Amino acid sequence: MLLHLTTWPEVEAYLERSRGIVIPIGSTEQHGPTGVIGTDAICAEAIARGVGDATEALVAPTINVGMALHHTSFPGTISLRPSTLMLVVRDYLTSLTKAGFTHFFFINGHGGNIATLKAAFAETYTAIAELNLPHGDRVRCRLSNWFTCHRVYQLAKELYGSQEGSHATPSEIALTQYLYAEAIKDAPLDPQVASGYPIYGPADFRRHYPDGRMGSNPALARPEHGQKFYELAVKELTEAYREFLKAD
Amino acid sequence: MLLHLTTWPEVEAYLERSRGIVIPIGSTEQHGPTGVIGTDAICAEAIARGVGDATEALVAPTINVGMALHHTSFPGTISLRPSTLMLVVRDYLTSLTKAGFTHFFFINGHGGNIATLKAAFAETYTAIAELNLPHGDRVRCRLSNWFTCHRVYQLAKELYGSQEGSHATPSEIALTQYLYAEAIKDAPLDPQVASGYPIYGPADFRRHYPDGRMGSNPALARPEHGQKFYELAVKELTEAYREFLKAD
Amino acid sequence: MLLHLTTWPEVEAYLERSRGIVIPIGSTEQHGPTGVIGTDAICAEAIARGVGDATEALVAPTINVGMALHHTSFPGTISLRPSTLMLVVRDYLTSLTKAGFTHFFFINGHGGNIATLKAAFAETYTAIAELNLPHGDRVRCRLSNWFTCHRVYQLAKELYGSQEGSHATPSEIALTQYLYAEAIKDAPLDPQVASGYPIYGPADFRRHYPDGRMGSNPALARPEHGQKFYELAVKELTEAYREFLKAD
Amino acid sequence: MLLHLTTWPEVEAYLERSRGIVIPIGSTEQHGPTGVIGTDAICAEAIARGVGDATEALVAPTINVGMALHHTSFPGTISLRPSTLMLVVRDYLTSLTKAGFTHFFFINGHGGNIATLKAAFAETYTAIAELNLPHGDRVRCRLSNWFTCHRVYQLAKELYGSQEGSHATPSEIALTQYLYAEAIKDAPLDPQVASGYPIYGPADFRRHYPDGRMGSNPALARPEHGQKFYELAVKELTEAYREFLKAD
Amino acid sequence: MLLHLTTWPEVEAYLERSRGIVIPIGSTEQHGPTGVIGTDAICAEAIARGVGDATEALVAPTINVGMALHHTSFPGTISLRPSTLMLVVRDYLTSLTKAGFTHFFFINGHGGNIATLKAAFAETYTAIAELNLPHGDRVRCRLSNWFTCHRVYQLAKELYGSQEGSHATPSEIALTQYLYAEAIKDAPLDPQVASGYPIYGPADFRRHYPDGRMGSNPALARPEHGQKFYELAVKELTEAYREFLKAD
Amino acid sequence: MLLHLTTWPEVEAYLERSRGIVIPIGSTEQHGPTGVIGTDAICAEAIARGVGDATEALVAPTINVGMALHHTSFPGTISLRPSTLMLVVRDYLTSLTKAGFTHFFFINGHGGNIATLKAAFAETYTAIAELNLPHGDRVRCRLSNWFTCHRVYQLAKELYGSQEGSHATPSEIALTQYLYAEAIKDAPLDPQVASGYPIYGPADFRRHYPDGRMGSNPALARPEHGQKFYELAVKELTEAYREFLKAD
Repeated sequence: MLLHLTTWPEVEAYLERSRGIVIPIGSTEQHGPTGVIGTDAICAEAIARGVGDATEALVAPTINVGMALHHTSFPGTISLRPSTLMLVVRDYLTSLTKAGFTHFFFINGHGGNIATLKAAFAETYTAIAELNLPHGDRVRCRLSNWFTCHRVYQLAKELYGSQEGSHATPSEIALTQYLYAEAIKDAPLDPQVASGYPIYGPADFRRHYPDGRMGSNPALARPEHGQKFYELAVKELTEAYREFLKAD
Repeated sequence: MLLHLTTWPEVEAYLERSRGIVIPIGSTEQHGPTGVIGTDAICAEAIARGVGDATEALVAPTINVGMALHHTSFPGTISLRPSTLMLVVRDYLTSLTKAGFTHFFFINGHGGNIATLKAAFAETYTAIAELNLPHGDRVRCRLSNWFTCHRVYQLAKELYGSQEGSHATPSEIALTQYLYAEAIKDAPLDPQVASGYPIYGPADFRRHYPDGRMGSNPALARPEHGQKFYELAVKELTEAYREFLKAD
Repeated sequence: MLLHLTTWPEVEAYLERSRGIVIPIGSTEQHGPTGVIGTDAICAEAIARGVGDATEALVAPTINVGMALHHTSFPGTISLRPSTLMLVVRDYLTSLTKAGFTHFFFINGHGGNIATLKAAFAETYTAIAELNLPHGDRVRCRLSNWFTCHRVYQLAKELYGSQEGSHATPSEIALTQYLYAEAIKDAPLDPQVASGYPIYGPADFRRHYPDGRMGSNPALARPEHGQKFYELAVKELTEAYREFLKAD
Repeated sequence: MLLHLTTWPEVEAYLERSRGIVIPIGSTEQHGPTGVIGTDAICAEAIARGVGDATEALVAPTINVGMALHHTSFPGTISLRPSTLMLVVRDYLTSLTKAGFTHFFFINGHGGNIATLKAAFAETYTAIAELNLPHGDRVRCRLSNWFTCHRVYQLAKELYGSQEGSHATPSEIALTQYLYAEAIKDAPLDPQVASGYPIYGPADFRRHYPDGRMGSNPALARPEHGQKFYELAVKELTEAYREFLKAD
Repeated sequence: MLLHLTTWPEVEAYLERSRGIVIPIGSTEQHGPTGVIGTDAICAEAIARGVGDATEALVAPTINVGMALHHTSFPGTISLRPSTLMLVVRDYLTSLTKAGFTHFFFINGHGGNIATLKAAFAETYTAIAELNLPHGDRVRCRLSNWFTCHRVYQLAKELYGSQEGSHATPSEIALTQYLYAEAIKDAPLDPQVASGYPIYGPADFRRHYPDGRMGSNPALARPEHGQKFYELAVKELTEAYREFLKAD
Repeated sequence: MLLHLTTWPEVEAYLERSRGIVIPIGSTEQHGPTGVIGTDAICAEAIARGVGDATEALVAPTINVGMALHHTSFPGTISLRPSTLMLVVRDYLTSLTKAGFTHFFFINGHGGNIATLKAAFAETYTAIAELNLPHGDRVRCRLSNWFTCHRVYQLAKELYGSQEGSHATPSEIALTQYLYAEAIKDAPLDPQVASGYPIYGPADFRRHYPDGRMGSNPALARPEHGQKFYELAVKELTEAYREFLKAD
């Protein structure tokens, strides 16, 4: 059930049976010479919709631009500053809590969002509690990264070993290949790929990771891998969402 | 050319021939008993992609949640506060200007975004100028609402007369019907529809517009109308984008 | 009834018969070679006081510095950033709502304020609603530009035709001449005046409008025109204020 | 030379002989049963204009709403929050510094503004320095309260002794009487007046100072006193402004 | 009773007998060639703990970085911007007020903090009042500078006369010598010391005060003086704290 | 070398041999019935000073109040909001970068700070880069939690097994016992301790963790354990700091 294809009376009816909603969040950032800039948003959105189908949960519109400041030395990257993303999350949750939602299940496609999202959740719990809304002290956020799902992680290891790397990984590229066959890219990949440098600012990042990859070999990606990743992630996150709604 | 399906080297190449980008912006808000909540984002995105196809312009990911505070008494609406949306716009433009973009063509699907976007543009011109970026003083934003395109407006008048109204209009509903046949909704519409009240806060809005429509009769919408609106809007905005790039 | 010449017990008494207040807002910005920098504030203030006299409404102190970032390449201009002006408006309205005011009638002298004011109103409705004040959900703002009053607009057209232009217009200069005879300026005006360029950032503005005028010929202004503009605007806005108070 | 009655080419010419500007700042707040709400702005503005006349300095538009949160339990008070006023000051100074001004002489009519102004100055020096403007590191702000001028203070003591008090004082009321004879108010004043309580929040303030006065007997005020205060303040601040411009 | 060495049940018990807390605030800024950078925090903390011992008051952790922007041209200085410090104070007071504290007694070691703290208090009173907390309208802040205690000031005058100066003073250095004998520094001090320049931005400050001292001769400081300053300040502020708690 | 016991010329000299600084950050929050509220700040500060001794690094004053919003239902907790802490970090780093520091090694005592610090680092890299400071693009932050040091973690496991828990842990309590023998507390501890609940807002936290502990048995803590933890953490972080300075 996609929020953007739903009417408000349908949402009103939904709220009588559930107070949960799935919110996909990605990023708009370089993914190496062959990965598409929307990779993280594409993956998060597709998996969130899969979870929505499996659980009859509402799925909110994707937050498709996230926290990618360290990638901004590469053209095409768009990033919110962490402080902006925190306000975006707060506005989302305030709007939805006023309507009666209390359980926010974020499906995340980008490691760089994690810290900011956690900070945003903490800030928002208190901000909403201060508004004295009916269910304001029942608000709960859960952050689930599809790429850290246990079975996803295992499959990536099996398929790619250390060539999975940590950015522009074959697993995420494979998932976009499965979803957008028309956007499978071909470009020369230097067999030597930088890895192991910590992430500091944007200039430093590009200095150390000149083609944008971090230790990965996305040439290993295949659409059929992508399908498997998709299925594993949807399955695991479907269970997680159900648990999330049940727990007190 | 969709930014999210593009790689960074492709963007780098693009910047050698153009400094323009199309940015669709919509809203996630109630659209009456039969209009889908994503109407404004859906329309803006589709038309922006049409313009992108016609002009070979890059199209950024859609800003799908906009300024809809006045609709927040209806469940399902998500709104940024104006101050948040201004920061989002600033972060988009700062990221893209650092990469070399200077011409930002916003295709907008929601009247409620207009004031905030204009304020954001003014704030951002000065903020970017203060960063002393290479092309920082060449940054230009254009705001184009598909629903105020001359030929769109005329057709809506011909088809619906005064029943076009000003929110949850048959023209925008028709466009979503054309794009998402599976999301055509059927619900009883009171033949009496409120109209003419000015817009104040969310509680006041719902008091005056109890089913969310503002003077409109979306039952008149037809997918085939939607197709015509789409074509007219794409044509007119394609011309506008070309003009925008040319002017000094 | 000017708020600044009133005592608090007088305001307390006023609140028993009215919850409305008139707030003039102008700008402090270049108005071409012969227009004074305070033009927009002067006009808004005078007309607001006229409306106050006609309706026995309280008139707040003038917001004399508005959103004029695009004029800041000309010396003497002072501008708030849109985000600052939004906070100013919010603080005004919060102070006054706590005291019992609910109907805020802004009389505006500057086109550049419009977008920011509308954004500020939207932000403030929700911010005040969240404070749970007694009449917080009854707060209403109305924005009236004296220069778009129907009869003002007509007279300007009759008197100046296309030489009215859109900034440093003869109509606004005439109004300041009527109010401040001692500040009628004489300076050479290039008969060729730039017009038709869209407004972007401050450097761009000055590049296209080198003497600050936008398509106008302020040499046509006469104090006696100013008087007429004054009277027409006061009359029309007096009616508008009365309507504003009455409507529910 | 009043900025609002000046054209931009006149300001351009002014900047060739001086980089200084006088900025009056007051407040819009209750001043007891007989003092007008604009007292602080009225006094600061009149004296600033006197100083402007004596020194041929430009005088900016008055900041007529200041930091008066502690008075907001009395109707008619409008206050900026300190954080907002700091942004207003920053925007004023940034606009003016970009044009070439460097010496900002604030003439202040309200004790409650002092702390916030000093904080704003500190914040702004660094903010402007970070913009790398031509004279950005030469920016200087001076805060002068007319009511703490040596000779003003002495005269108030002579005329009123301890009945001067510290808010709604006879000296400031006298000054407004001199300037606005039509706004001399008559209202019963309890001979017992609260004094000596520290200032905390708005509710606490009204609890301790129920009619708004702080230890003062404004019934002693006379317009002719006001004239003397005016002349003494203008004289002393004229000297201070000249010193301010000279010092390095 | 030091908050950081207390458990939460002990704080809970404390709140049954007192709603007051002592908050030391200093600065981390240059103190001339021989004064340690933590001088202001060290002094405030030690005296606050003395007051805590004498009154059995809780003492909060020291705010050891304050508003010292004007000292930031000297290495080792760390400063919050005033706007940041205001948020820090607000967050402290909001946390503590939610727990039941209402009387906040700040012991301050740095003149540069005063304006910002006063602005912060004003902002916070209203912010907390808007949260509708049980004792929210009873919140009170008191700012006490140890160096302006009557007896401290007198002793400094007796011991050092005009060589006390106004920054890197022998009195504060003496106090740090008493507290940290191991950090008594020896460095050549120019017998000529700058004094009398007003404080503007950081570059200007260092230009006028090249070694960081303002009119002071810290070579006069002795640890045994420091002990006396400590004892006088603790005694006077102990009385002040008791008064603060008693007054209504 | 403690920054607060250093003079500015000593810092100037230090900067000629190193651009690194150690910044301890803790929290002021409940630590169960027997843990002191300053636990996290105490531990971080002591270990940071140990690292400073071992490496001759400067150690900045401790950020003793961190992000502990989820603990604010327990009296004595003081928390910055994440957005405030981000500004604090930004102000620290901006001050120090202007003076020439580039390598910021945070020693952290509180898990709840991690997300906010990471968000703050990302925000600050870009903010500082935009200031165009000499070494602005060389700024690097490293976050090291003493409690996740490999050898610390191992020892905690050996000593306490699963009774280590995740808040108010015996390891951190032991460390405070070693450092502050006078503050060893005795209080009854329910043998049943809550564990396993995710962290949401403050009210929810206290509902699930009624005495503040999260799965821990702090009764197992001994001062002599604390000494070992201290030594292991100092040793490991000393190495980490040296690596941090060396890497490019």
